[in-house]
Amino acid sequence: MGKNVTGVGRPRASGAAASSQNAREAVLEAAGELFTGAGYAATTTRAIAERAGLRQASLYYHFPSKEDILAALLAATVRPSLEVAGGLSGGDAPAAVRLWALAYADIRLLGGARYNLGALYLLPEIASPNLAPFRAEREQLKAVYRDLVAESGAPSGSGSDVAVRSNLVFGLVESIAIVRRDDPVLDVEAHAVEGADGVLRVAGLPAPDATLRAAARALLTRS
Amino acid sequence: MGKNVTGVGRPRASGAAASSQNAREAVLEAAGELFTGAGYAATTTRAIAERAGLRQASLYYHFPSKEDILAALLAATVRPSLEVAGGLSGGDAPAAVRLWALAYADIRLLGGARYNLGALYLLPEIASPNLAPFRAEREQLKAVYRDLVAESGAPSGSGSDVAVRSNLVFGLVESIAIVRRDDPVLDVEAHAVEGADGVLRVAGLPAPDATLRAAARALLTRS
Repeated sequence: MGKNVTGVGRPRASGAAASSQNAREAVLEAAGELFTGAGYAATTTRAIAERAGLRQASLYYHFPSKEDILAALLAATVRPSLEVAGGLSGGDAPAAVRLWALAYADIRLLGGARYNLGALYLLPEIASPNLAPFRAEREQLKAVYRDLVAESGAPSGSGSDVAVRSNLVFGLVESIAIVRRDDPVLDVEAHAVEGADGVLRVAGLPAPDATLRAAARALLTRS
Repeated sequence: MGKNVTGVGRPRASGAAASSQNAREAVLEAAGELFTGAGYAATTTRAIAERAGLRQASLYYHFPSKEDILAALLAATVRPSLEVAGGLSGGDAPAAVRLWALAYADIRLLGGARYNLGALYLLPEIASPNLAPFRAEREQLKAVYRDLVAESGAPSGSGSDVAVRSNLVFGLVESIAIVRRDDPVLDVEAHAVEGADGVLRVAGLPAPDATLRAAARALLTRS
């Protein structure tokens, strides 16, 4: 119904490329469902290929091993939040506002994704060499939280250090995986708002008010 | 070296009973190591029996299935905290003090256990019928947190309800499983103190001070 019905305009991906991209997406979609449903160890690449409607050879063309599929799925749980973090880092907004914005976006991402991929963070396979890039990106994201907690300059209540609070903050964000497993019809938006509030509180900062939340949301719209 | 060297006094468990109890413990110990190391799905009952130094028949005598072993291990991650909650419920201490005490004890339990059994909470197998008693006990514990959050009467900052905050509180406590997986030489005591502080903050209560913490610790010693 748009301007391009005549075929004029921005060129589309060629059929082959589009179909290759589609195959990759179909594998990730099927694997996300099976890994979070039946479990990672119980899922074979054959079952993934079948669910995706592909031959196993096509699957292996995109992902040489099952762990490579896991790596791609998990990358998608941290990379968008790293991008948000990058967009927030340039401006001059207070650290507390940026911390709220990052936590809110991150909880929405983990809580709102079609499958509960955060539930895969505790798999023993996370330690394998194929998952090193995911581990590195997740560490990067954790470091951003740590920097924001440190920069926000919350007074230390009980003599504990920034590292402990950052661990708790990161744990609180990622715990959305447990919460949504317990309650599949979760109100993700309410949890993201209250969770970001909780992150500031755990960091030792004053309870955020409507002004801070509005400023944080504005940052996210802009970035 | 005590009073009972002569054999007089409280009767001991008979040799057979003692050894049966030992066999049960040996299975749980071996399974805890293998489930959290190699993974639940990848671990066979045969491997557990071998590691425990038992014949498979002895294992099956105590645990008819692998899921029964999982159920017993997971029960041990919530039952002691339910007992703590029971001990706290009688007294007249303020809800905030009881909430701090429960969270502190719970984080110490999950964080200090020999194996990181909280990492098994996100297994798909948790949904199976054999795990119903564990799910029920965990729900009971969650309900205690919810009641304490409600009773503590924190003002609602952003119009959210007690349910959302209780979920976040419970998530923050259980996230110790993620934190200790990331950092196996974690200072559990520091995390338990700061985590219990964080629980009160997430619940919307004022930051706890040394007096509240001391009162909470005294409750735990008494109960």
